[in-house]
Amino acid sequence: MNSDLELQKRRIRAARKEVVSDLVLKNGSVINLFSGVFQRCDVAVCEGVIVGVGPEYAGNEEIDVSGRYIIPGMIDGHLHIESTMLLPHNLAAALLVHGTTAIVSDPHEIANVAGLEGVRMMLEQSADLPFDFFFMAPSCVPATGLETSGAELNTADLLKFKNEPRILGLAEMMNFSGILSCDEEVLKKIYHFRGMIIDGHCPSLKGHELQAYMTAQIRSDHETSDRSEAIEKIQGGMMLMIREGSSAKNLEELMPVINHRTSNRCCFVSDDLSAEDILNSGHLDAIVKKALLLGLDPVTAVQMVTRNPAEYFGLYDRGAVAPGRRADMVVLDSLDGFNVISVYKNGITLVEDGRLVSFPKSNRISPFSSSTLNIAPLNRDSLLIPHQGEKARIIEIIPGQIITKMVFDNVKSDNGFVVSDTASDTIKLCVVERHRGSGRIGLGLVRGLGLKNGAIASSVSHDSHNVIAAGICDKDILTAIDAVRLMSGGLVVVSGENIIAKAPLEVAGLMSVQPIDVLSRQLKSVELAASNLGCVIKKPFMALSFLALPVIPELKLTDMGLVDVNRFEIVPLFTSKLSDQPLTVRY
Amino acid sequence: MNSDLELQKRRIRAARKEVVSDLVLKNGSVINLFSGVFQRCDVAVCEGVIVGVGPEYAGNEEIDVSGRYIIPGMIDGHLHIESTMLLPHNLAAALLVHGTTAIVSDPHEIANVAGLEGVRMMLEQSADLPFDFFFMAPSCVPATGLETSGAELNTADLLKFKNEPRILGLAEMMNFSGILSCDEEVLKKIYHFRGMIIDGHCPSLKGHELQAYMTAQIRSDHETSDRSEAIEKIQGGMMLMIREGSSAKNLEELMPVINHRTSNRCCFVSDDLSAEDILNSGHLDAIVKKALLLGLDPVTAVQMVTRNPAEYFGLYDRGAVAPGRRADMVVLDSLDGFNVISVYKNGITLVEDGRLVSFPKSNRISPFSSSTLNIAPLNRDSLLIPHQGEKARIIEIIPGQIITKMVFDNVKSDNGFVVSDTASDTIKLCVVERHRGSGRIGLGLVRGLGLKNGAIASSVSHDSHNVIAAGICDKDILTAIDAVRLMSGGLVVVSGENIIAKAPLEVAGLMSVQPIDVLSRQLKSVELAASNLGCVIKKPFMALSFLALPVIPELKLTDMGLVDVNRFEIVPLFTSKLSDQPLTVRY
Repeated sequence: MNSDLELQKRRIRAARKEVVSDLVLKNGSVINLFSGVFQRCDVAVCEGVIVGVGPEYAGNEEIDVSGRYIIPGMIDGHLHIESTMLLPHNLAAALLVHGTTAIVSDPHEIANVAGLEGVRMMLEQSADLPFDFFFMAPSCVPATGLETSGAELNTADLLKFKNEPRILGLAEMMNFSGILSCDEEVLKKIYHFRGMIIDGHCPSLKGHELQAYMTAQIRSDHETSDRSEAIEKIQGGMMLMIREGSSAKNLEELMPVINHRTSNRCCFVSDDLSAEDILNSGHLDAIVKKALLLGLDPVTAVQMVTRNPAEYFGLYDRGAVAPGRRADMVVLDSLDGFNVISVYKNGITLVEDGRLVSFPKSNRISPFSSSTLNIAPLNRDSLLIPHQGEKARIIEIIPGQIITKMVFDNVKSDNGFVVSDTASDTIKLCVVERHRGSGRIGLGLVRGLGLKNGAIASSVSHDSHNVIAAGICDKDILTAIDAVRLMSGGLVVVSGENIIAKAPLEVAGLMSVQPIDVLSRQLKSVELAASNLGCVIKKPFMALSFLALPVIPELKLTDMGLVDVNRFEIVPLFTSKLSDQPLTVRY
Repeated sequence: MNSDLELQKRRIRAARKEVVSDLVLKNGSVINLFSGVFQRCDVAVCEGVIVGVGPEYAGNEEIDVSGRYIIPGMIDGHLHIESTMLLPHNLAAALLVHGTTAIVSDPHEIANVAGLEGVRMMLEQSADLPFDFFFMAPSCVPATGLETSGAELNTADLLKFKNEPRILGLAEMMNFSGILSCDEEVLKKIYHFRGMIIDGHCPSLKGHELQAYMTAQIRSDHETSDRSEAIEKIQGGMMLMIREGSSAKNLEELMPVINHRTSNRCCFVSDDLSAEDILNSGHLDAIVKKALLLGLDPVTAVQMVTRNPAEYFGLYDRGAVAPGRRADMVVLDSLDGFNVISVYKNGITLVEDGRLVSFPKSNRISPFSSSTLNIAPLNRDSLLIPHQGEKARIIEIIPGQIITKMVFDNVKSDNGFVVSDTASDTIKLCVVERHRGSGRIGLGLVRGLGLKNGAIASSVSHDSHNVIAAGICDKDILTAIDAVRLMSGGLVVVSGENIIAKAPLEVAGLMSVQPIDVLSRQLKSVELAASNLGCVIKKPFMALSFLALPVIPELKLTDMGLVDVNRFEIVPLFTSKLSDQPLTVRY
């Protein structure tokens, strides 16, 4: 305590101008998010905290930022670290240059693979960095019982790290049907996290079903894609997290709901963001730029990524350039340009002229040195699909969306076994259980990849992250799956039984140990290789990763088989006329 | 936990319309404080919680409120219970009919008299009522070292009830000079309450001194009386508590700072409110009415007394008529009228047609059965003031304000002793130490009461609540002081050594055991009696109570003597030319 008091005394004295501050940003335009006013003045920092926003402060270090704009460090209220495929320290370095100084993450991808040990690893890997990683306790691991995950987190497990200082509450409660059906375990989890933040996840939920979900104390949603749905959620008191990620983009549709009444009930989040998009487009800075182009006023736009998430998560030490707040600040070239010039974290200069100038060398030992891939030996018979019945259920990819269509069609066969048919773009898809070496394999057919030759495979497949592969011939598919196994996880492209491109994800098969530039090159190479094999999807591995997610309609494939998501049950590949028609989507 | 889960299940089922709700308000207009929209619909309540806001809910009890407006129960973020002179259960009954369902109180008056025991008493007396009393831990007991208080609360004392569920943080940090001078004990208190709400109190503080105060993590202020000061505080991230109490009224001056940017950074509080004002004018309902008359839009006005204080204090279970929120609701006749028709607390009907229809009979034993007044025996000599020097420092009352002027004038004497002079309205004022029987008496002169005969005395004198008395002749003053002692505290008016009116405040000399109507009659009677003695001040006892408050300029009287507040030191009654001129006010 005493050292804290000494720091406070120095700060108060600096605020009173009795002593010189550590750092002063001179003559910038501070965007005041409480009054909407632009304050042309100095910002004084002492012992990592802002102590003055006004005229003429003296600092040991003084930086002239006249003509520039000063905003608080940006905060992403919902971003899955694993989706970026970067380890926390590499992600932090990548986000800082875009003005992000804190994120709130739900580590449920790693939890599905490595359980509590995985969450611990994320906490350790993200500690003691000049960037704040906050976490929510994963509420839905596994996501469903229709897949084999590497771990299960029950209430008792969650309570083990409920009191970790960087755990802010319970992560997105994806199991909304569990809430609506009053599932005991689900309500228990919420009960034990009462008084903390409980994030939601309720796509298309409306009316009194939505209100039942809110009655369970769920306080946010980031799955809203429709305006009227958005208004219902805001009116119910939810924080509307407007998502603009690599796959799902909702900003353009939802921006009209932001007005002077609702402007502090919304924020911008990215949810799932690829390393390439971060490198090429940016993060929250890119979302704000887009919002400005769509006509949102700058003060409100900045509020969406600073003050609003800070207040929602109770992070009262940040979210504004004001006395007593943590000195996390971003200097912008201009409001229309919204380009990040420099970034300060706890008063330390980390980014200058848009480049990272100071960041701790990672002395972190690479986690999970031994592979988390435990795949039973496969042989050619493993992938055989006997042809039976007339028509097969085929997963049809809808470009740019994570939902799929379930189509019914005749399929090509060779000596009684189903084979890929490039003519009709109907290609063999497999999901191989990779946690327990059970040898369990789900087999199906996918349409829309456009692959003409070879195979692609990945250890990233939501939410259980079994190995998913698609290809023209079984030999290539087997080679690809084995290549993923041999590199302890990752993305691979195979042709003529040769590996022609790969991107290793050796950390639980989800994340790379490489920095963003190296990883991005690898990702480009596998995407290019896939397109050279005829793949027509821009992000084939991202598309692949969602083909195994049995909570998103319409037809998906897990290691347990084909899942008719609308019926929420395993269905056979071949279908009799009787059960041809899927039920309509129901939430 | 299990019973909680069962309640949650019932609520969720009611929300889904699987079971009938307990209570449904039919066809009212719900003011949605998140969107600003008026929702004409039903409000369904189950197990004390709102489970549905929408069309056609069925309830075991259904109340038609068509044509009426529904708002959340109102919340006063800063109201001192003791100022109302009512015990919590009597205050709750009085406030409920005005639509208030929760207050946040700083029990520092009782703490100055009875210390921790006093705070405990308030917690006990306010428990288990259909009204929520929250408290802040008194940060400044005693207010100064220039008076004798009944108790002192240090950091260790405060920590004793920091974890009480109804303690929300640290109460108004009145000792802003302590913060500015980096007083160790003051900073320690704040340090130990970090992460909780820390309320402020910084009249007229501006510029970098204000920012130094904010740097110490102070998050609100309710002493703002000036517009530019208000804007500075909002821009610094403070919650601006716009005060409209019985003595200090700031709404009219500050309302212009409320706009669409700042509207969720302000709220309305009453701070100090007399029982008579509650009975005659109301509480937050009256403040909102005034704001509407001043031109504030109804949605914003309601937000100031519901959602905003709820969010500031982290009371996320209330502040809106929305699913999952506590069913604290107020039904209004109309928006312009803003008259409270009915009030529901946790879904229970407490007020109908503006009258309290259900409230638990108080089985509370009256606290502090033995008197807290410990006054040493007095005799006529006790009040003698030898005349010395030419001019005396006289406390001049400024009507309607709690600050006083320090004037210098010749005073009348009789055989060498100062006597009251009705011609110049210069009357003897005494403050008698009442906690320790020390016999310590502060003697001075007051101008502006207008008393022509007799004496008035009170056991309410901020903040230490020693007995304060003013009168024409010493006999009457002594009789009045003794009368206060004999009734264990209260207000009294004496003439010709006879008690002509009194209002007992037997609870610590601060609060009455009577309900509001009885107490108000008694208060009227003492005020009438005082005016019959020539008193020209409308609220003489309130004026009297502030004459002993040594933190408010310019000249005050404590049991230790006259306090020159600007110099913050004890000064003699008689002055030499040299020290005639007071310093200018400095904060």
